[in-house]
Amino acid sequence: MLFDPSEYRQRMDKTRSAMAQKGLDILVVTDPANMNYLSGYDGWSFYVHQGLVIFQDQDQPLWFGRMQDSNGARITTWLDEDHIYGYADHYVQSRTVHPYDVVAEHIRDRGYASKTIGVEKDNYYFTAQCLEHLARGLPEAEILDGELVVNWIRCIKSDQELAYMKMAGQILEKVMDTAVSMIQPGIREGDVAAEVYKTMISGTPEFTGDYPAIIPIMPSGKRTTTAHLSWTDRRYKQDEIVLLELSGCKHHYHAPLSRTLVTGHPTAEMEAVSKTVIQGLNTVVDFIRPGVQAQEIEACWRKAIAGSRVVKESRIGYAFGLNYPPDWGEHTISLRPGDTTVLEPGMTIHVMPGIWTDTLGFECSEAIYVTESGCDTFASVPRQLFVNKG
Amino acid sequence: MLFDPSEYRQRMDKTRSAMAQKGLDILVVTDPANMNYLSGYDGWSFYVHQGLVIFQDQDQPLWFGRMQDSNGARITTWLDEDHIYGYADHYVQSRTVHPYDVVAEHIRDRGYASKTIGVEKDNYYFTAQCLEHLARGLPEAEILDGELVVNWIRCIKSDQELAYMKMAGQILEKVMDTAVSMIQPGIREGDVAAEVYKTMISGTPEFTGDYPAIIPIMPSGKRTTTAHLSWTDRRYKQDEIVLLELSGCKHHYHAPLSRTLVTGHPTAEMEAVSKTVIQGLNTVVDFIRPGVQAQEIEACWRKAIAGSRVVKESRIGYAFGLNYPPDWGEHTISLRPGDTTVLEPGMTIHVMPGIWTDTLGFECSEAIYVTESGCDTFASVPRQLFVNKG
Repeated sequence: MLFDPSEYRQRMDKTRSAMAQKGLDILVVTDPANMNYLSGYDGWSFYVHQGLVIFQDQDQPLWFGRMQDSNGARITTWLDEDHIYGYADHYVQSRTVHPYDVVAEHIRDRGYASKTIGVEKDNYYFTAQCLEHLARGLPEAEILDGELVVNWIRCIKSDQELAYMKMAGQILEKVMDTAVSMIQPGIREGDVAAEVYKTMISGTPEFTGDYPAIIPIMPSGKRTTTAHLSWTDRRYKQDEIVLLELSGCKHHYHAPLSRTLVTGHPTAEMEAVSKTVIQGLNTVVDFIRPGVQAQEIEACWRKAIAGSRVVKESRIGYAFGLNYPPDWGEHTISLRPGDTTVLEPGMTIHVMPGIWTDTLGFECSEAIYVTESGCDTFASVPRQLFVNKG
Repeated sequence: MLFDPSEYRQRMDKTRSAMAQKGLDILVVTDPANMNYLSGYDGWSFYVHQGLVIFQDQDQPLWFGRMQDSNGARITTWLDEDHIYGYADHYVQSRTVHPYDVVAEHIRDRGYASKTIGVEKDNYYFTAQCLEHLARGLPEAEILDGELVVNWIRCIKSDQELAYMKMAGQILEKVMDTAVSMIQPGIREGDVAAEVYKTMISGTPEFTGDYPAIIPIMPSGKRTTTAHLSWTDRRYKQDEIVLLELSGCKHHYHAPLSRTLVTGHPTAEMEAVSKTVIQGLNTVVDFIRPGVQAQEIEACWRKAIAGSRVVKESRIGYAFGLNYPPDWGEHTISLRPGDTTVLEPGMTIHVMPGIWTDTLGFECSEAIYVTESGCDTFASVPRQLFVNKG
């Protein structure tokens, strides 16, 4: 196991406390990161319905998933055999039955048919049909929104979690270096992406890396005017912008970072935008410390870039950490007006004031963890516009 | 665009016909593969709520997504400007508002408030909360299950789609060769995974590859007793099983394949299992042709392995093609009892009779497309148990 059993038990205790506060007897957890956080479960099986059922009065969650994945639960979790349940294969992608028929039956059999049940209502892996089948199978239960209950507990990282994220940071430094040193006019975007992937996974001589929850985002040219495009077959041209939003990843803990590169000569507009954003980012990183609110960080940014021509409507950062595709963000803290979350030591935030206009894209971000007195970064990559003169 | 505009329009026509058959005035499409199939949209933005709204009486779908992704829609789709709608950023992962509030408003504003609306109720990207917010915003609408409406149309590939899948097959051959030639006792699993990734993405001198919808599945030793584990920091040992479930991918079209390797000497049990499964697979591939039912293929397999000690409870294959994480399967055809789908030319199936027992794993599969008279494979990799003697 990657954590001491006592750490998993503490996480379970916190979860059950949070459930009690919300009046939940049961919480059905489908977010793969939450499943991993509470049980250790780690497999690419989230494309079929699976989850944990947390009972208020039981120390261990129940893992449920497809039968052929249940040995994966035996190998990767700390759960006892009677807390691992594999359902029959004919429930998979069936036109007549649904795995949540079985989950409902299981909850009923254990005597919880008329209890209050929380579900992660906006999680990718809890579809509208999951809710319908669960509700149909448990007509006497009260089903409430338990979205983000575990995510909020995940916000504050333990020392061991931070240690894994620092390993991811070590990988990230190598990944960013690979990309920056390779990009030149004439090189295919996909060939750089290939080396980026190799560096992400081969890691260091001491440890290899994991797949991050988001692919390497690395568009160039016109494709930098939007947030989530990536490589193609095309070759970089002279005087082109390349965005690099990359991550190291270890044991599914991330260290993301964005930088921007120009092949040749940056335009005056690009010089101005990069100067403004980098100065804003520096100001924000200096400002972050325990006790400040998420929205105050955004206000600090807004003040720092005031008077410039940079317009930034979207949030400038979010909590991140342990995750699986499609997102390394935790869906809790957002650096934007109205988010009154007070920062505490151990919180981890990707400060990411990405700029996408109709003429250019510019990204320069920093992944930080809150310390007792301020914050620190997971990797050391110069905050600058990279220029590769051909 | 990757397809002639007429091909997108044909797909739209087929979708609207299928909607008419189900009595749907509107279909909300959230599956990223369905979005790509109908509009061309291609970005890693499915971690926030986005989709297409197909109106029975309009030629073009409406793309909706986060504002900062809307230039991505302008760049990658064939849609006119008035069919691209970016919602404001404060709807993203908010505790008070939800993107489907906006979707409902949009449908209402266009005069469809009391129509019949289909939604993809079991899609990863259509959560329980999406349905609740849509229903709340459109109380007079009838909301029905439109799950798989587009997926079933995707079942039969066009010539251009098959051409992309054959490109993926070319990449796959190189990927499988990379893995088989590298695996030796003493090598770290992650270092092989790194080269596998590099080969997947760098592709061929003529074209690069895309990220597949499933990571390289390549567990070893004890971890082969289950279906979806992958690499770690560990080094391969002598006389160990390694499963390889890998894919080439081009323009998000896949060519998956599984093979098994032993570092040293296979056990007698492994020899027997591999002989049975490969013979079963050969029989099935010879059997597949237009006109047979999916369940007949499974019956053919069951008959071929009868009398052996191999037990296979789960389905032995599924439709695949265009896809995004977390699954390259299309959730339509399954090779199992009860699936009466009749095969037609252009259908693409991953015949994947994976075996996972408490003592070993064995995988040998074939990705095929149905031809006028039988079927053909996307790649040419020997159907055998690979043995790397150290």
